[in-house]
Amino acid sequence: MTDETILLAHGSGGKLSHDLVAKRFFPFLANPELDKMDDSAVLELSGRLAFTTDSYVVNPIFFPGGDIGKLAVCGTVNDLAMSGANPLYLSLSVVIEEGLPISDLERIMQSIKGTSEEAGVSIVTGDTKVVNQGQADKLFITTSGIGIVPPEVNISGANAKPGDKVILSGTMGDHGIAIMSQREGLNFSVPVGSDCAPLGKLVSQIMQSLLNVHCLRDPTRGGLSSTLNEFAQQSNVGIVIEEGKIPIKEGVRAACELLGLDPLYVANEGKLVSIVEPEYAGEIVDRMRESDYGKDAAVIGEVVSDHPGKVIMRTKLGPSRIIDMLSGELLPRIC
Amino acid sequence: MTDETILLAHGSGGKLSHDLVAKRFFPFLANPELDKMDDSAVLELSGRLAFTTDSYVVNPIFFPGGDIGKLAVCGTVNDLAMSGANPLYLSLSVVIEEGLPISDLERIMQSIKGTSEEAGVSIVTGDTKVVNQGQADKLFITTSGIGIVPPEVNISGANAKPGDKVILSGTMGDHGIAIMSQREGLNFSVPVGSDCAPLGKLVSQIMQSLLNVHCLRDPTRGGLSSTLNEFAQQSNVGIVIEEGKIPIKEGVRAACELLGLDPLYVANEGKLVSIVEPEYAGEIVDRMRESDYGKDAAVIGEVVSDHPGKVIMRTKLGPSRIIDMLSGELLPRIC
Repeated sequence: MTDETILLAHGSGGKLSHDLVAKRFFPFLANPELDKMDDSAVLELSGRLAFTTDSYVVNPIFFPGGDIGKLAVCGTVNDLAMSGANPLYLSLSVVIEEGLPISDLERIMQSIKGTSEEAGVSIVTGDTKVVNQGQADKLFITTSGIGIVPPEVNISGANAKPGDKVILSGTMGDHGIAIMSQREGLNFSVPVGSDCAPLGKLVSQIMQSLLNVHCLRDPTRGGLSSTLNEFAQQSNVGIVIEEGKIPIKEGVRAACELLGLDPLYVANEGKLVSIVEPEYAGEIVDRMRESDYGKDAAVIGEVVSDHPGKVIMRTKLGPSRIIDMLSGELLPRIC
Repeated sequence: MTDETILLAHGSGGKLSHDLVAKRFFPFLANPELDKMDDSAVLELSGRLAFTTDSYVVNPIFFPGGDIGKLAVCGTVNDLAMSGANPLYLSLSVVIEEGLPISDLERIMQSIKGTSEEAGVSIVTGDTKVVNQGQADKLFITTSGIGIVPPEVNISGANAKPGDKVILSGTMGDHGIAIMSQREGLNFSVPVGSDCAPLGKLVSQIMQSLLNVHCLRDPTRGGLSSTLNEFAQQSNVGIVIEEGKIPIKEGVRAACELLGLDPLYVANEGKLVSIVEPEYAGEIVDRMRESDYGKDAAVIGEVVSDHPGKVIMRTKLGPSRIIDMLSGELLPRIC
């Protein structure tokens, strides 16, 4: 069984496709909606619906702290959560390179199952395509997600106001450095695992009794710098952060120095940046620290009316510098 | 401008990613939801929601009668329509191979725009990833879709009942043969174009005043045979069809003979199979024939209580034979 690999016929829409889905995917993903095997899932919902999608092409597909399946669930759950939504349902579409060991696929489905359960979401619809060897690299996954945004919630990158505080939920750069180390076969004295995690519960903890959160976003590709620049541009405000307040793990710092990378541009997959009303910042940080995924939360800066559209960092050494959006490609296929 | 190609940095999440989306995608896709550029679109909806997803890996990406963009919109719109839903919103996620000409991408976006407009859907959220040359083949697209199912509608592959009639909306095999001809550089005396079309309006025409439609499905990969087998198995009924009643274009028939293919297994992208209460079959066929996409509609068979799970075809020459589900791979990367 373990020597079996994916054939082109597994993507034919015929018998082998059905068997693959029924025998290899359903045991992990089964739920009443998916079991119907109709073209669409039909769900009873009402209210403000959040809808998002992401494709995952991470290389390698297994890495310290996760794999492409965990990443695909976390990434889409987190995009929903960053809209203030409760993540509910996911779709799962896979493009597989002919020859992929079916055991790899099962390991990934197992991981999707575990992460979905932790995040409280169900996979309700999906698709499988197979392409010839050399026409894709092992496996690409696209997840789309649906969640419900509570009526009073209003989160957008365009909502930052001068005076607001900038809160970061934890250390920067873990995911990118974990992938890089695995890919390049680097061994650092302090090994780094990906921070890949579903943040729905962290977000609902923040939002539970407080409606003073203006912006939420997960700093994935492009890192913290790109996310803050997006907020500054969407809200037409300036942002000032303090280098000394940004938590970075020792292993990540060392790896970044060695590789000539700036951790503020390195991708994260289990962190969030939040912009909140200043008088609630302390309480929000305290709430975040109660969660496993927010225990290093800190206020790292504030929103200002000066230099709209720009992000400035006060460095540890004193002088300030502009933190620009990532321009080139730092680490391809990081997510 | 036309010589520009996609770089890895276009998938970085940084400046070039933003520029690509803002300058090359938005001019075609712009709508108030997408313009917000938040991680999720937030939509006001209520009722029974249909949710579906498909990845498209068709090769070549441009073919007679369509391209991968048109196909990605039609395929997902059709999956929603086949649940009896009114298609409303799509997500669009692209995995691009480094080196793809940006002009190809713009042509595809133009096609997505035109097809979305025809189908009455908006692209409200999306994602772009870029992989190194040789790690994907030009472009893969994943679309997910959301629609609303009217309260009284109940469509499922499990709803077929003995006595029901089987209706086909038009000719079989056009899409598969169009792709095959293009890919292999075959020139048939009667050229065949893909039937790729959004069927939302055809479905709403059928359903307008009648609630006697039990099953709807578009016979894509695996063709008519696989769809009928799915119905027979999901509903635990037998299905009998008549070969002489299945419309097939002369060019498709000739190409299939030359290539040794059975048109009942060849993919369609603008056709539907419907199982309906017998007394309404005539009226439904008449309604379908009023639409451009249903002008060759015909009753091709019926549901029986004999041989549950199996599909039998009465051949033109007299004897009956079992029509099985597609087992191997007929035509890889057809959609």
